Amino acid sequence: MRRGQCPRRSRSSTCWPDPPGARPDPAGGLAPRPLESAPVTETPRMPHQAPDPALAAKTRLRWLDDSAANGEPPAEALDPPLTPAEAFFVRNNGDMPPAVDAGQWRLDITGEVERPLSFTLRELRESFSVVSVTAVIECAGNGRAFLDPPVSGAQWRNGAVGCARWTGVRMRDLLERAGVKPSAVYTGHHSPDRSLTSPDRPALSRGIPIAKAIAPETLVAFAMNDEPLPRLHGGPLRVVVPGYPGSAWQKWLDRLDVRDREHDGEKMTGTDYRLPARPVRPGDAFDAASFAVITDMPVKSLITRPAAGFVAPAAEALTVEGWAWSGATPVAGVRVSADGGVTWTQAGLAAPGEPYAWRRFSVVLTLARGPVTLMAQAFDVAGACQPVDQGPWNPRGYCNNAVHRITGQMA
Amino acid sequence: MRRGQCPRRSRSSTCWPDPPGARPDPAGGLAPRPLESAPVTETPRMPHQAPDPALAAKTRLRWLDDSAANGEPPAEALDPPLTPAEAFFVRNNGDMPPAVDAGQWRLDITGEVERPLSFTLRELRESFSVVSVTAVIECAGNGRAFLDPPVSGAQWRNGAVGCARWTGVRMRDLLERAGVKPSAVYTGHHSPDRSLTSPDRPALSRGIPIAKAIAPETLVAFAMNDEPLPRLHGGPLRVVVPGYPGSAWQKWLDRLDVRDREHDGEKMTGTDYRLPARPVRPGDAFDAASFAVITDMPVKSLITRPAAGFVAPAAEALTVEGWAWSGATPVAGVRVSADGGVTWTQAGLAAPGEPYAWRRFSVVLTLARGPVTLMAQAFDVAGACQPVDQGPWNPRGYCNNAVHRITGQMA
Repeated sequence: MRRGQCPRRSRSSTCWPDPPGARPDPAGGLAPRPLESAPVTETPRMPHQAPDPALAAKTRLRWLDDSAANGEPPAEALDPPLTPAEAFFVRNNGDMPPAVDAGQWRLDITGEVERPLSFTLRELRESFSVVSVTAVIECAGNGRAFLDPPVSGAQWRNGAVGCARWTGVRMRDLLERAGVKPSAVYTGHHSPDRSLTSPDRPALSRGIPIAKAIAPETLVAFAMNDEPLPRLHGGPLRVVVPGYPGSAWQKWLDRLDVRDREHDGEKMTGTDYRLPARPVRPGDAFDAASFAVITDMPVKSLITRPAAGFVAPAAEALTVEGWAWSGATPVAGVRVSADGGVTWTQAGLAAPGEPYAWRRFSVVLTLARGPVTLMAQAFDVAGACQPVDQGPWNPRGYCNNAVHRITGQMA
Repeated sequence: MRRGQCPRRSRSSTCWPDPPGARPDPAGGLAPRPLESAPVTETPRMPHQAPDPALAAKTRLRWLDDSAANGEPPAEALDPPLTPAEAFFVRNNGDMPPAVDAGQWRLDITGEVERPLSFTLRELRESFSVVSVTAVIECAGNGRAFLDPPVSGAQWRNGAVGCARWTGVRMRDLLERAGVKPSAVYTGHHSPDRSLTSPDRPALSRGIPIAKAIAPETLVAFAMNDEPLPRLHGGPLRVVVPGYPGSAWQKWLDRLDVRDREHDGEKMTGTDYRLPARPVRPGDAFDAASFAVITDMPVKSLITRPAAGFVAPAAEALTVEGWAWSGATPVAGVRVSADGGVTWTQAGLAAPGEPYAWRRFSVVLTLARGPVTLMAQAFDVAGACQPVDQGPWNPRGYCNNAVHRITGQMA
């Protein structure tokens, strides 16, 4: 399902062109600023599963109370252009596969191809062009915690998102070498990713349409931010599908299967990572057969400065900045409100970089004494914008791209 | 610490007198309406502890992912004036004490009294006037899930509140019979309420100032909504402290100790159920010695109709109603906004009933097509009102009385 436009546009938001009352950002200074250490106010609570030494490095994460290791950073920890390891969210459906020697890892290519193939990581590096893509990865359930009424699932607030430089080989190059048959429609990604609570269920196995598989941005990656891909993030080998939700970015990839129909692997069907084609009213019966797999993610933004709970001097310049991103449709702009959405100020937006990286926005406000809630609302070139209220409610709570709010105090 | 006034008043909220643009409610019809069954959209997930048959009756609760049994209803399940058992929130710090024969239960009165006493439940009934009080009980952590930045603890949304008719004997009558010494300052309430995760810690033991202990509304109660007090709610005997947070309403009471100083029992000290005397900025160091025990709860309201996720016909009358309550300071009014707080409509308010019961508010709005967020903001006779943003952030996330929001669709 394409989500290039908000199905439910907020009545109070005319995003494009500039709304009446919007003011240009007089500052426009947009150079990303270095990370400052900000205190972690949440007591870190480690997940229930067997402790993994790698989790200890995730010092900026708030762990969800979940049987698998799931954790997200506070928004201010996402301030650097490339998300540092200690703040990169962790999302697991199950336990992680055992640590393996990357030298022994193999990727098999099977299915609707002329020549089934098998590669070691070294063979991948030596047989194909090695390329890098800077791209946002976001969990489809990011923002679920704010849905009204609430829905089950990991209760992500805003932090299940990060931006990294991913390095690997293009999936299209692999598929060309194997010779994709005209019957090819979809990929199926396979890995030893078994559920922690239901180990008898098949391993998680998702896939993507063949058009996205052969898009130049789609990689089979073995490095992240110029380091070997950490096991916590799918190392030694994962799929990278810029613009698609994290569910499509299969971790621990050991087989790439080409299929003649949409993939039906574990977590591909029913309501898993799928949205209703028509609005579903909470509590009403629905037919999951009419749901469609989430592909391009909606436009979204995150305020990374100031941090939630800030205290700033009243009547002095307050710089509000952060990131905006989207799926397939480029970001067009961001506007910021400090009065609950009554008035908005157009933010400056950094020049576009790589198409799937996030873009910096920045605006300088001068605010009166008192409590304040800052809101940022991004919109894309197709006119879709973030809803002020919440994204369209759906039974599993995906793709809530409601505007992010940061509450603080002008003192 | 008295919380009769919002320490952080929202800049956009002039609560009292009526703000410009507020309109009287033309309808004013305020008779409570019967409960309709509303679908539970959350898959009930039972708590980790040993299943208790009584929990099965809590059909309207969303269980928190917690080691102890903690669950809250959706707001619409709180529509009846007296909260029904299936929708009454459950809050446990630990496992519940074993089920006992109520006939064997004893209450001892000890400490700074002339005559230590001991009663069976039957002796309590026969020796003292049996009285009933209709009162709201609300967990101090209700609303914690919405705090920004997030804080640890049970992630209550808005449902950790209910209103019941409590029946028992006045604590003052017990204390008079025992003969309170002039040295009496505080009570200490004792029960076999041990932590599930730290069974070696002392049993939970909280208390109240002697002035509240002898207030006419404070009971030692053995019935709830005219039924024997369920074990899940502290049966056979609990303390009832109208206006105070649920933490003061000790469950499974077996000893009432009179003290010559503030109580120092388990969960009375440090940051437990205490608020900072001065604002604490998130992440900053603080001195818990300057924190004060939460006593009177702040003014608050809850929209119970329509339900979150409603779809209602545009341009037709939409009735918005629910409950308002407060601690010691009576509720003065409620106003409702359907445009994010830009304009507000004064709601009709039912005539005052019992002082610690909640009061019905109701307003009829006619709204245009599109998504809508309904907000209700209550204010009290002292001029304190609910903040639109959030209550004052504090390290444990207590007393967040931010306005409740219900999101739906005018179609």
